[in-house]
Amino acid sequence: MRSTETAADRIPAHPDVAAVPLQAVLEALVDPVRRSIVTQLADAAADIRCGDFDLPVSKSTATHHFRVLREAGLIRQHYAGTSRMNTLRRTEFETAFPGLLTALTQATHTAAVTARQESPKAG
Amino acid sequence: MRSTETAADRIPAHPDVAAVPLQAVLEALVDPVRRSIVTQLADAAADIRCGDFDLPVSKSTATHHFRVLREAGLIRQHYAGTSRMNTLRRTEFETAFPGLLTALTQATHTAAVTARQESPKAG
Repeated sequence: MRSTETAADRIPAHPDVAAVPLQAVLEALVDPVRRSIVTQLADAAADIRCGDFDLPVSKSTATHHFRVLREAGLIRQHYAGTSRMNTLRRTEFETAFPGLLTALTQATHTAAVTARQESPKAG
Repeated sequence: MRSTETAADRIPAHPDVAAVPLQAVLEALVDPVRRSIVTQLADAAADIRCGDFDLPVSKSTATHHFRVLREAGLIRQHYAGTSRMNTLRRTEFETAFPGLLTALTQATHTAAVTARQESPKAG
């Protein structure tokens, strides 16, 4: 083999969450698509493949959003075969920004419930 | 008197915090000047006059930031004589977005402490 590249080499370094400024975290979370990615991860019992999120954007736009979340210390990415997987860095993030992730996911769920109550579908 | 305008008339209506979308709240709080206004109010034991905040912006820019915070349900404004006073809508906001304000003010304080530790001043 001439190349020694491994799957790990294809993923850029992840920041130390404690070193991420609050400003970067809020700029990541102010975007509704990125907040949706975080909420879907928070609700899932397992990691989610990049292609398996329910998102209203193109694949290349989604890739941009994953990068912003990774650089803000919110998600960790790794390869499983050829699939890029995403993990919420829940424990590390909770240590660095106590209560923030819980408050945001709870507020997102409350908003979703309110929206369903206000526009009930027949059937 | 020909005018029946009262001090109350000079302040626009305040929204019901429960009706403010999370998106509007986060767009208000992503700005560092607005976050500083909220933190100063959270730390103060009393209301703060618009002119008494420690802010790095002009008076007209500050007025814009107060308006965004008022429309996001974060502050309540009223007149005391000719002074426009600001109150954090802490209890109402906590009911609508549990834990969010606490998490943000705590993160802001942690960041401030870290910044002081990293650049200690002599004397």
